[in-house]
Amino acid sequence: MKKPFFLLIILFCCRIVFAQTPQIQRVDPTNWWVGMKNPNLQLLVYGPNAGTLTYTINYPGVKLVKASKVENKNFAFLDLTIAPTTKAGTLQIVGKNGGQTITRAYQLKTRDNQPKGQGLSSADFIYLLMPDRFSGADPTNDKFDDMADKESDRNSPFLRHGGDLKGVENHLDYIKELGATALWMTPVIENNQPQTNEGGAMRSAYHGYGFTDHYTVDKRLGGNEAYKALNRKVHAMGMRVVQDAVYNHVGINHWFLKDMPMKDWLHQWPTYTNTSYKYQPVTDPHSSAIDKKVTLDGWFVPFLPDLNQSNPFVSTYLIQNAIWSVEEFALDAWRIDTYMYNDQPFMNRCNAALQAEYPKMYTFGESWVNNTVDQAYYTRNKINFPFKSNQTGGLDFVLYTAMNAGLNENEGWDNGANRVQQVLAQDAVYEDPMKLVTFLENHDTDRFFSVVGEDINKYKMGVTWLLTTRGIPHFYYGTEILMKNFKNPSDAEVRRDFPGGFEGDKENKFTEEGRNKAENDAFNFVKTLANYRKNTPALHSGKLMQYLPQNGTYVYFRYDDKATVMIATNQTDKPIGLDMARFSERTTGFTSAKNVMTGDVISDLKTVQLPAKTALVLELQK
Amino acid sequence: MKKPFFLLIILFCCRIVFAQTPQIQRVDPTNWWVGMKNPNLQLLVYGPNAGTLTYTINYPGVKLVKASKVENKNFAFLDLTIAPTTKAGTLQIVGKNGGQTITRAYQLKTRDNQPKGQGLSSADFIYLLMPDRFSGADPTNDKFDDMADKESDRNSPFLRHGGDLKGVENHLDYIKELGATALWMTPVIENNQPQTNEGGAMRSAYHGYGFTDHYTVDKRLGGNEAYKALNRKVHAMGMRVVQDAVYNHVGINHWFLKDMPMKDWLHQWPTYTNTSYKYQPVTDPHSSAIDKKVTLDGWFVPFLPDLNQSNPFVSTYLIQNAIWSVEEFALDAWRIDTYMYNDQPFMNRCNAALQAEYPKMYTFGESWVNNTVDQAYYTRNKINFPFKSNQTGGLDFVLYTAMNAGLNENEGWDNGANRVQQVLAQDAVYEDPMKLVTFLENHDTDRFFSVVGEDINKYKMGVTWLLTTRGIPHFYYGTEILMKNFKNPSDAEVRRDFPGGFEGDKENKFTEEGRNKAENDAFNFVKTLANYRKNTPALHSGKLMQYLPQNGTYVYFRYDDKATVMIATNQTDKPIGLDMARFSERTTGFTSAKNVMTGDVISDLKTVQLPAKTALVLELQK
Repeated sequence: MKKPFFLLIILFCCRIVFAQTPQIQRVDPTNWWVGMKNPNLQLLVYGPNAGTLTYTINYPGVKLVKASKVENKNFAFLDLTIAPTTKAGTLQIVGKNGGQTITRAYQLKTRDNQPKGQGLSSADFIYLLMPDRFSGADPTNDKFDDMADKESDRNSPFLRHGGDLKGVENHLDYIKELGATALWMTPVIENNQPQTNEGGAMRSAYHGYGFTDHYTVDKRLGGNEAYKALNRKVHAMGMRVVQDAVYNHVGINHWFLKDMPMKDWLHQWPTYTNTSYKYQPVTDPHSSAIDKKVTLDGWFVPFLPDLNQSNPFVSTYLIQNAIWSVEEFALDAWRIDTYMYNDQPFMNRCNAALQAEYPKMYTFGESWVNNTVDQAYYTRNKINFPFKSNQTGGLDFVLYTAMNAGLNENEGWDNGANRVQQVLAQDAVYEDPMKLVTFLENHDTDRFFSVVGEDINKYKMGVTWLLTTRGIPHFYYGTEILMKNFKNPSDAEVRRDFPGGFEGDKENKFTEEGRNKAENDAFNFVKTLANYRKNTPALHSGKLMQYLPQNGTYVYFRYDDKATVMIATNQTDKPIGLDMARFSERTTGFTSAKNVMTGDVISDLKTVQLPAKTALVLELQK
Repeated sequence: MKKPFFLLIILFCCRIVFAQTPQIQRVDPTNWWVGMKNPNLQLLVYGPNAGTLTYTINYPGVKLVKASKVENKNFAFLDLTIAPTTKAGTLQIVGKNGGQTITRAYQLKTRDNQPKGQGLSSADFIYLLMPDRFSGADPTNDKFDDMADKESDRNSPFLRHGGDLKGVENHLDYIKELGATALWMTPVIENNQPQTNEGGAMRSAYHGYGFTDHYTVDKRLGGNEAYKALNRKVHAMGMRVVQDAVYNHVGINHWFLKDMPMKDWLHQWPTYTNTSYKYQPVTDPHSSAIDKKVTLDGWFVPFLPDLNQSNPFVSTYLIQNAIWSVEEFALDAWRIDTYMYNDQPFMNRCNAALQAEYPKMYTFGESWVNNTVDQAYYTRNKINFPFKSNQTGGLDFVLYTAMNAGLNENEGWDNGANRVQQVLAQDAVYEDPMKLVTFLENHDTDRFFSVVGEDINKYKMGVTWLLTTRGIPHFYYGTEILMKNFKNPSDAEVRRDFPGGFEGDKENKFTEEGRNKAENDAFNFVKTLANYRKNTPALHSGKLMQYLPQNGTYVYFRYDDKATVMIATNQTDKPIGLDMARFSERTTGFTSAKNVMTGDVISDLKTVQLPAKTALVLELQK
């Protein structure tokens, strides 16, 4: 090319170009295991002139099939096969260059028998938290002078606050008490990113979406060992571990960007090009090639370079890291960030590789779309798209939008609960709509309690919909204690610290005593319903039958052979006597009902009284 | 059943119960043809005690396979087969009862060679009009004393105005001049309905959706012969005929309701039950049976009883009438009213029967939905629904909504032209999105010119989108002369008479002289673009490539091997110099462009000037 690319100037600036004795400074994956189903392993070998060496490996069962040189002489990619009979141990990677011989020890470990790859199902209830903002147990790991961002300051909404994994571990009992069965944290992987100046304020990468080393948990969160300890505890308590994957991009400070293996390790543009954030060109049969390329290959922001997943070395690097993470950290499921900006054939390869190794593995991508057709595109679906996604699950943004909007509206032709009913009515497009992850909010949205105008009645109706309709519900930390705020003026407003999570906090909302009456009311509402759900298969794996909303009421049933649960919301400000005749298809044979939240028994099923602005959850009884 | 149904009391009240000499007063279809592909024909035979007779038919090639008796002794259903070699002629239907013999002549005609069943394609441009409101040529057929509704009064928006088919015929040159290639009229079939009192005002069934005799064109429109004459003329002028089908219901005054063949000829309810007008229960995998039944079997309004299309006699009656109509009136395509309230398996049988007889037959149903998934349900689609529609086309209500809303909004993340772009981006769900009928308005909606605030610039952008994007566009009469109004206070506001269509009209907007400057500007805009479209296959059968809207502009291309047409709208109130580099995938190789509307040549394709609030249609040139 005639003129060097702008980005290459930045990213290759540190490349060591003068001759140097070859070294191996790093091998990724940092270790592997014997007894994996897939016998193949590709090692990225990095060090000055590591690409100039001729490699041999001499270890029973292990065969070096191919050694690839790439543009940058400091990288070699070694393709191994590991026979099923191979014993655990330490092999030597031997590199020769003329008279010089370099060796590097590499561990093949025995797989442990911790639970992992258990997946998620509609029996689960996921609790999402931001580890920097939930609880800090160890003040000594809040900041480090050897990291690019050396600050930690709870007085700034934009900087790190010192939360850590030990803090999360300390409150697993709280999470379990609430009825959650799975823990999803925003990413824990090292984000050794500099602060960025956005809107005039310096901001930390406390959110975690800019990885700088795929094999290291951020030491400000406690590092790899703290993560393994946390996950052991989560599993011991009968819960499951969800990790947040970021395949699309990495942090600008990622170690491999300082001396990239090859130019097309990243998506390169003549001048900086941001993604349009528009998903439509990917699914649109009428799209232009350039719009599609900008969506997929444009960068998320300037400090999060876009990985080129159609480069086989990048693809393998990411997929192996995913499998390594499951095995090393004992993960059960993956949430996948910015799912729709990833190369979709890559995503399919990655999903398939994970499921090949862990057949129950469950993944749910973030595809922030505004309609069901596009949502279906990114999960297993019944639409004959030219591209067929193999993703098991997905975040249900369409239902999220419908529930938030519907709670703030009076019933209209397409409004109020009709929004929810109409979204569910399109479920025929999914291979299994029960596998979608449902939610009222997350770390990128306004907080639910604020969206519903801090109206506890709307809050309870929303929570009831979430915990009783189809899908795998997830909660966002703090909603159970009525944490609020809009994203205005910044995302930080919806990512405030959990009160009581940090030393010196005046309040401790983890305890009943620390919560005020309204907060306990909310907490107990969620707790009661989530625990009832946990123990009532009809509510998660049972069928759904919904009735058209009428007069401000919305009624549906979850049912299986063992139980029938009726859910009814009245969004009006008047009590309504619900004529039950219309629901006879589901109520025939039942004579009474138990109010799941209060324990009260309703002995006459002819007319059920629905108080104003209320959700009822009734278990029908014969 | 213990107590007689309310409706049966009404509908059977006129049944003749005392013994009477058998008679045959009516046979439907009123005639048939030899040489049809389907050899089967079921005759409905009606008359006092017609069901008590034993029937024989003695005619070479014709076989009476089965004679069915039904609940009402005044009906018999005779199943015939007509061998391919059968000659045209008059056969005798002979019915015997003891010593009595009744005979009835029945004609098997030779098929004429008029064009029929030609279908429609994206090369077409449909003109929709209401025959009562377009033009009245014959004042003597405006009203009749022997009809239930004896009035005609142009001073009342709710009564008949005296338009007729001869009036339409008189203005076919006008319709053709505009660039239309097909004529669709709201139903012409007899509506011998009484006036109804709605909202305190008496209203005529001038809209035509309450049939009272499937085999008779309303004599107030001119009757069967006038319709045949009109269609001959339409064909002679190279245009096509679309008939408006109503399968779901009939008028309360339909002849066969006065003495119904059987109770379940109609959908019966213990008490009057209206449809919910909600389509979701039909497509919803979680729906209750009762919601689905109310949608499908509930009545449209009390004076339009709901036919039971799962009754095989009803089903055959309707399908044979459809085929009879094509053959008798020389129809090319069907618009199907309230498509989604029909029994869908019936609709498939009906569509299949029409296409079996006329392979190019094209049908497009009215399914007024608010999302693409549900729109796809009612046409040939790529979604693996449990029910698979075989309908070739469909009215694109989703695009209609998007175009109307998008023209009235500034560009936002999902607003303005993004609405249109996003709807088209979901086209992967259709087997062939080019077969959808697109529109800006119809007789049931606010008029387009009013929707866009009588802004001629928005009007022209909307017309441009309609006539240049994918699909088969339809126009609603009068929009070309800027007829306006909202449906408030009533539908009649959007169904006003075409000025100049009736004797004594002070204005005649059918002529250039009769139109004012603004009206001629609009008329000429539509005419120029529609005629250009007619002669430019790229604009109708060419591929579509659309670009993401940016900065208030929306750019797309229609192209084939012969031509490339660029369409660009600028919805902002500032002129924009459009950087053409982004469109190189479609513009490479072209050096100039012709403005299709003005003839001006643009000799530099680097930057194209888009004036404020303007649509440009450019044919690229090498």
